[in-house]
Amino acid sequence: MLYFIGLGLGDCKDITVKGLEIVRQCSRVYLEAYTSILTVGKEALEEYYGRELLLADRDIVEQQADEILKGADVSDVAFLVVGDPFGATTHSDLVLRALNAGIQYRVIHNASIMNAVGCCGLQLYNFGETVSIVFWMDTWRPESFYDKIKKNRDMGLHTLCLLDIKVKEQSMENLMRGRKIYEPPRYMTVAQAAEQLLEILQNRRDRGEELAMTEDTVCVGLARVGAEDQTIRSGTLQELASSDLGGPLHSMIISGHLHPLEVDMLKLFSGPEGLKTLKMTDSSTYAS
Amino acid sequence: MLYFIGLGLGDCKDITVKGLEIVRQCSRVYLEAYTSILTVGKEALEEYYGRELLLADRDIVEQQADEILKGADVSDVAFLVVGDPFGATTHSDLVLRALNAGIQYRVIHNASIMNAVGCCGLQLYNFGETVSIVFWMDTWRPESFYDKIKKNRDMGLHTLCLLDIKVKEQSMENLMRGRKIYEPPRYMTVAQAAEQLLEILQNRRDRGEELAMTEDTVCVGLARVGAEDQTIRSGTLQELASSDLGGPLHSMIISGHLHPLEVDMLKLFSGPEGLKTLKMTDSSTYAS
Repeated sequence: MLYFIGLGLGDCKDITVKGLEIVRQCSRVYLEAYTSILTVGKEALEEYYGRELLLADRDIVEQQADEILKGADVSDVAFLVVGDPFGATTHSDLVLRALNAGIQYRVIHNASIMNAVGCCGLQLYNFGETVSIVFWMDTWRPESFYDKIKKNRDMGLHTLCLLDIKVKEQSMENLMRGRKIYEPPRYMTVAQAAEQLLEILQNRRDRGEELAMTEDTVCVGLARVGAEDQTIRSGTLQELASSDLGGPLHSMIISGHLHPLEVDMLKLFSGPEGLKTLKMTDSSTYAS
Repeated sequence: MLYFIGLGLGDCKDITVKGLEIVRQCSRVYLEAYTSILTVGKEALEEYYGRELLLADRDIVEQQADEILKGADVSDVAFLVVGDPFGATTHSDLVLRALNAGIQYRVIHNASIMNAVGCCGLQLYNFGETVSIVFWMDTWRPESFYDKIKKNRDMGLHTLCLLDIKVKEQSMENLMRGRKIYEPPRYMTVAQAAEQLLEILQNRRDRGEELAMTEDTVCVGLARVGAEDQTIRSGTLQELASSDLGGPLHSMIISGHLHPLEVDMLKLFSGPEGLKTLKMTDSSTYAS
């Protein structure tokens, strides 16, 4: 059996009881380590589980899947994923490979950022399509996520923005020379994401477009959701561009229409002057 | 401290290790019991936790919140919620009441249907706004969820439909006479939800509207996600209208545009003739 086990978002003890029991009985345990990170490291997990973990980076999962599947038809192998196994990313490919090889699979779910963002008080059923914001480079500055935010805002919906993660990336030079030397990991902060959005707003304004949002639109920055030192900050896009929410991982929400209860919750996470750009549009709706 | 603890979707052991440790140390433990149900009952949880659970129905949470909060400033109280505490529903009101009473709170996240639906192979970031489908009554047959499905479909997005739950409802007669006699709980099945959608399609066709979907649109029915006997069925809306996925809880997804990997996953859950209404719209997109 191949077990896909979600680890949740915080620390060692966010694994479910069922997940932990399976981890302790499997013959091999892989830790998927390129789509997200747990606030605690591999060593802390190994100590708590009492098991050695095999790091599964992108190369291994995508190109050496056979290694992961080896023997899983006669013994149990666990594949651990931060968050939920089918949350922010998907491991469908590994499921299909397993079934093709006659190996059964089972999923042990857990919280992912896709549902845990509800902790800021914005209601999950008021969210539209989730977007990803990638690190801009000199020559590659995609703005497509802005257009999706616009569609959501037009319908009054919030947008969850997943922020870029660069783990085990090679520099262009090392990639071209075939040298397996990796850059230090990078995680986009809420401030960086807000900066890129501000630049897009200016670009669109210069082109005379009608804007989906402004520097005053209320946004929410979230850092290390589920961990002891989780930090949530609500405020205008402009305010978040100069925020410092500490270490990774960060995510950001662009608000749509807000219910009064959602506003009350966001007030818990804003400064005393926060949310003053919110305007009541009718007795049960706020917008910014 | 008031702890909001997610129980996940399956059975006793889907609670996180952290959640279980807290449950066992709290002075009082409430089980929220009106927005969802766990596949196992209260008694099974009590036995596994080794704790008595106080059932918190809608009356208690909304009208007698003080009882839940009593003493939580000096001792620990746990409030257990099936799924994630801020998942399919929200307990913001209880958070705000606690803070007003000088009581701190903490959230222990878990899987909810909002992220666990990823197990069918449809990617979570391809979903639009989530909708609720309510039981129709003789004189109240709302169709608003259809219009949201249409907006999602127009953008190529999937729609998660949460299906109605009626727990501890009074009949109109008992309500008017003030008799606290409750109807047996009812849970909408995928077949019932599909039937209502088929009727709406017919209504809209009669009015000459351009349809968002047809009887042939590929949908996914999910039952008891996360439990041992979880059942997933993919097929056309028409097929799902005559499906029997067993006991509660059920949810349904109306597909949008599909990536080939999503199609491969849905094939795992369809009959041999299933998905034959899917058409390739370009080399990397299918639609129905």
